[in-house]
Amino acid sequence: LNRDIRVVQVGLGPLGKMIAKHIINERKGIRYVGAVDISPELVGMDLGEAVGLEGKVGVKVGVDAAKVFKATKPDIAIYTTTSFARDTFKQLEAAIAAKVDVISTCEQLSYPYFSEPKLAAKYDKLAREAGVSILGTGINPGFLMDVRPIVLTAACTEVKRLEITRRMDASLRRKPFQKKIGAGLTKAEFKRFMKEGKITGHVGLEESLCLIAAALDWPLDTVVVEEAQAVIAEAPVASPFYQVKKGQVKGVRQEAYGVIDGEPVIKLSFAAYLGADPSYDEVYIEGTPEIRARVSPCWHGDHGTVAMVVNLIPSVIDARPGVLTMNDLVSISFKGGEMSCFVKGKK
Amino acid sequence: LNRDIRVVQVGLGPLGKMIAKHIINERKGIRYVGAVDISPELVGMDLGEAVGLEGKVGVKVGVDAAKVFKATKPDIAIYTTTSFARDTFKQLEAAIAAKVDVISTCEQLSYPYFSEPKLAAKYDKLAREAGVSILGTGINPGFLMDVRPIVLTAACTEVKRLEITRRMDASLRRKPFQKKIGAGLTKAEFKRFMKEGKITGHVGLEESLCLIAAALDWPLDTVVVEEAQAVIAEAPVASPFYQVKKGQVKGVRQEAYGVIDGEPVIKLSFAAYLGADPSYDEVYIEGTPEIRARVSPCWHGDHGTVAMVVNLIPSVIDARPGVLTMNDLVSISFKGGEMSCFVKGKK
Repeated sequence: LNRDIRVVQVGLGPLGKMIAKHIINERKGIRYVGAVDISPELVGMDLGEAVGLEGKVGVKVGVDAAKVFKATKPDIAIYTTTSFARDTFKQLEAAIAAKVDVISTCEQLSYPYFSEPKLAAKYDKLAREAGVSILGTGINPGFLMDVRPIVLTAACTEVKRLEITRRMDASLRRKPFQKKIGAGLTKAEFKRFMKEGKITGHVGLEESLCLIAAALDWPLDTVVVEEAQAVIAEAPVASPFYQVKKGQVKGVRQEAYGVIDGEPVIKLSFAAYLGADPSYDEVYIEGTPEIRARVSPCWHGDHGTVAMVVNLIPSVIDARPGVLTMNDLVSISFKGGEMSCFVKGKK
Repeated sequence: LNRDIRVVQVGLGPLGKMIAKHIINERKGIRYVGAVDISPELVGMDLGEAVGLEGKVGVKVGVDAAKVFKATKPDIAIYTTTSFARDTFKQLEAAIAAKVDVISTCEQLSYPYFSEPKLAAKYDKLAREAGVSILGTGINPGFLMDVRPIVLTAACTEVKRLEITRRMDASLRRKPFQKKIGAGLTKAEFKRFMKEGKITGHVGLEESLCLIAAALDWPLDTVVVEEAQAVIAEAPVASPFYQVKKGQVKGVRQEAYGVIDGEPVIKLSFAAYLGADPSYDEVYIEGTPEIRARVSPCWHGDHGTVAMVVNLIPSVIDARPGVLTMNDLVSISFKGGEMSCFVKGKK
């Protein structure tokens, strides 16, 4: 029996609102039966109004996920709450108890076995026992710097090294994003803001490295994520929100490495700054054949994350129970280690 | 219990030999326990010698797949025999009877539900009953013009139209390939060879269209594959095997369309000719965001097919039983139709 997918939105920040608007306005066969947020100004509102639509959708925003799940019996919950696996896992207890599948944009949840191995194992066990599938995904981590290169390696007979570059023109993004990368700051201000934690590099480079290494069966010795660096404007550059003078900061860049035997076998290179031209997402595979795959201009992050979350909902509902990663949904890649098979009872 | 994967090679033509050499020389954890071919000069030889290696591998080439399966009890058989699903299915009866999983480079087998819907349903039932997983794959169909674009659509919130182009420099390929695309012929010879079936376009465009349409849930009204056309040299061009004069044929091009409501929503454009520069594999997505993804130079077909077959062996062994397609291994894509979920017993 096929029927509409029933969804609860947990978290109505900017990303949660974008996802909700997209599902309400543009998707068929999937509908909201509930929504949850902690901010007093949203609780009690109709979901349509809460996300800035003209019409109502007939779903009130609640404050207690457990109660909402119990009252609405959804197939899946979309969690857009925090970037940290520890916080997200705690929140997921309500979904596991209610036997509701989960898809989340929590960056660390895309490979929680790295940042929180004990918690990941604990919640994996709880999820399996409850028959609940949990997946962290998004455009990055979740696609551009991990799944896309993973899939490309499937058509290589040998992969020696991977280099993945994202070079984003930040002037096309939202103002908070441009602020977060330090656009318009002096070098001194950038340093100070970094220390104060007001500027962060890209969140998720560790998780992308781990996803690639797990798919290719490459046992990494070390995961190195360097500190974000300022990208300095060599000429004035402007966005709709910021005017950057020569010598000021126009954005950030950051590199990360997956290391085996002292060799950086995976290099991730992330840069987001005003006026990057050309902007692109590139995968370079040193292997057989040698591959250079480029998406240009670069993939738009907001559209990409909304797309990944919504497009993958049916796959998560169908997936086996447990704390999953994208490698459980995409099973094609180069196999770097010794191959083996699990001896099943069927023969 | 994990142990080495035991493989039987069925078919020792050029592609079968390439796959065998790659597995024997470059892969660990997977080993041949048997081989089958119908040509009298190969039967009885050691597999190593049969594929042109210096050393022996201790496996004799047999002529009867059923007997070889019975004697060697492999986990999986690699079928590199024909391009036609009808012929391949008949040969697969031995594997199904012996409960041996199958991966095959048969082009039509990559989506047999198009060319042979009744046989595909029949053998799917037989395979399920026997607990056997069967997959047709390769670089194309199987990856470049179907799986690669399918995966890219996963990060789009809207996909209106897809255009996928493969522009291959044939001068880097084997001589038989260059001959097959008509290199060095006059226009008149090309026409005659086309009529006589000595020149074929790319095999598998129908299957690539169907794989994409199935993944995106786009119900195609028509699948149109145009006849291959000669690409005429506007200047002299040479390969290690052919000298092509101005006005002669340097290769072929071919287009195919997936049509909904009179609109060609998927366009495949294939060209292989001497000296194509730049050569590339491009995916264009008319959607949100608009995406242009290019691999350049183009992916090498022989390496690619060997890679896909060998890298996917563990996934096929793990996959559910039945006549599968690449969409069963790669579950991420844009969802074009109404979403729905299957109501399981778990809630």
